[in-house]
Amino acid sequence: MSTTRPRLSILSLAAALLLAHPLAASANEEQPAARSAAEIIAAAPDSDWRTPDPDNLLYMTLPTGLVVFELAPQFAPRHVANIRQLARQGFWDNTSVYRVQDNFVAQFGDIHGEDADKRKPLGAADVALPAEFEVPSASVQFSALPDADGWSDAAGFVDGFAAARDNRSATIWMAHCYGMLGAGRNNAPDSSQAAELYVVTGQAPRNLDRNMSSVGRVIHGIERLSALPRGPEPMGFYEDRGQDTPILKVRLGSDVPADERLPLQLLRTDSASFAAATEARRNRRDAFYVRPAGHIDLCNVPLPVRLKS
Amino acid sequence: MSTTRPRLSILSLAAALLLAHPLAASANEEQPAARSAAEIIAAAPDSDWRTPDPDNLLYMTLPTGLVVFELAPQFAPRHVANIRQLARQGFWDNTSVYRVQDNFVAQFGDIHGEDADKRKPLGAADVALPAEFEVPSASVQFSALPDADGWSDAAGFVDGFAAARDNRSATIWMAHCYGMLGAGRNNAPDSSQAAELYVVTGQAPRNLDRNMSSVGRVIHGIERLSALPRGPEPMGFYEDRGQDTPILKVRLGSDVPADERLPLQLLRTDSASFAAATEARRNRRDAFYVRPAGHIDLCNVPLPVRLKS
Repeated sequence: MSTTRPRLSILSLAAALLLAHPLAASANEEQPAARSAAEIIAAAPDSDWRTPDPDNLLYMTLPTGLVVFELAPQFAPRHVANIRQLARQGFWDNTSVYRVQDNFVAQFGDIHGEDADKRKPLGAADVALPAEFEVPSASVQFSALPDADGWSDAAGFVDGFAAARDNRSATIWMAHCYGMLGAGRNNAPDSSQAAELYVVTGQAPRNLDRNMSSVGRVIHGIERLSALPRGPEPMGFYEDRGQDTPILKVRLGSDVPADERLPLQLLRTDSASFAAATEARRNRRDAFYVRPAGHIDLCNVPLPVRLKS
Repeated sequence: MSTTRPRLSILSLAAALLLAHPLAASANEEQPAARSAAEIIAAAPDSDWRTPDPDNLLYMTLPTGLVVFELAPQFAPRHVANIRQLARQGFWDNTSVYRVQDNFVAQFGDIHGEDADKRKPLGAADVALPAEFEVPSASVQFSALPDADGWSDAAGFVDGFAAARDNRSATIWMAHCYGMLGAGRNNAPDSSQAAELYVVTGQAPRNLDRNMSSVGRVIHGIERLSALPRGPEPMGFYEDRGQDTPILKVRLGSDVPADERLPLQLLRTDSASFAAATEARRNRRDAFYVRPAGHIDLCNVPLPVRLKS
């Protein structure tokens, strides 16, 4: 940056997106009200952070490390109950990530799930679950964004999950944003068993909203899924089992030994800090942005996670 | 799929998104009007496809294979002229992809670009380019989508590039959708030189629209960038030069020997086939979807590419 001839990095770009920008900081000395999202989050009081219930956490161990999910029983209680049961049985131990479709999903579970002779037994888990595509609006606390959403009447958040609302039917559902965890199914809406799961790793496929039972989201380690080699087009299923990524084990958070748990905390999506950070992203005021957008899309709002020290 | 007990794959899901769905095909026998997007594209007449100008193509050779870009001189003529010059000089040969930030961008060029002593010379290329963030609406042919766009007055397409329009200023710009190629810069809007480039590989960061000079998009091989290992947070710059992905060479399409060129064709975004395929995605009618969205987001519209046989 100390060159006389300007060279193009997007260091500044990234800083504007993710960090307190050094030039923005000096600008802030003149306009102290314009804190960056990162500064707002760093300054959030402890009361704006929540510690997730370990019964709602799923620890997946891949050869590269941990992926941690927060489950959403408020959206899919029967699916989440099945996931807890399957995790307790060690159902996913020695299964795999067998499908990675570019700009879409990573899917995991029992590669032999469709084969009556080879598939792993579901044990005490339910084999028949209802579709859990949406819930009554009155059953959850929804914090609406002021920004228009082309896919729904209102976009916002429920307990840290991106969600959307339909006014006529008075329903709310989890939105297919980056990192969302969903239950695969066949054509019948009630054909999911919460054993084969997918994570959104591409441009938000909101067309799947209200068509799938959404069960949670990744809160740690998504790069261990999103950077996996892509399977062949058009659907991303690996053709050779040697390409699958082994899943060493999956445990419910409450079954992980205390000294192996991560001290994960999540910024409350109904907190003043979250609203202020979102506004700082909607209208960026720093030395990099020429033109603040004046808008933010539901799936562009980061859901901050920290490791409590 | 021939099991008595339904097992959950999202085979059907993917099929609904990308393929002619087998059950949809049988449903189509009763409702012949409801063709899938894939069926519409497969049936598009040759006149709905275009062969890009080889002067607008950039062939990048990575150790894993080719990434091909189509450049957009209608949006950034000065940047594209510089890119052509730099490619002719072999500027990017033996440079690298040195930054991969999860859910955001892959960035490439000269890792020493900020170092006055080590950087590669730009040769006959311009060292000072104007900001090319948007163009007058009257200068391009814009096909607007009917779907609302929270980031602009209208979203649509210009010559195969996702774009958006502002009515008051009567300007149009390329939208930061998955696969877009942009020119990195420092804080000054005119500090890009089109030597350090980035590709969008995450949820569309539309907040960057009208803040960057957008120069084209990936039309082949994006998975060779999108699946690269992520660099460390928060910005994804690799810390160890051994982690960089070498770029073996970058050539302008017109400088690639005829027998090494790919017979790439792109579906015209102003064609009836494109409009029909987009409508088939906006309102999906097959055995998988319970509830068609009735909406499509600009960055969810695939821009079909084929290898002409």
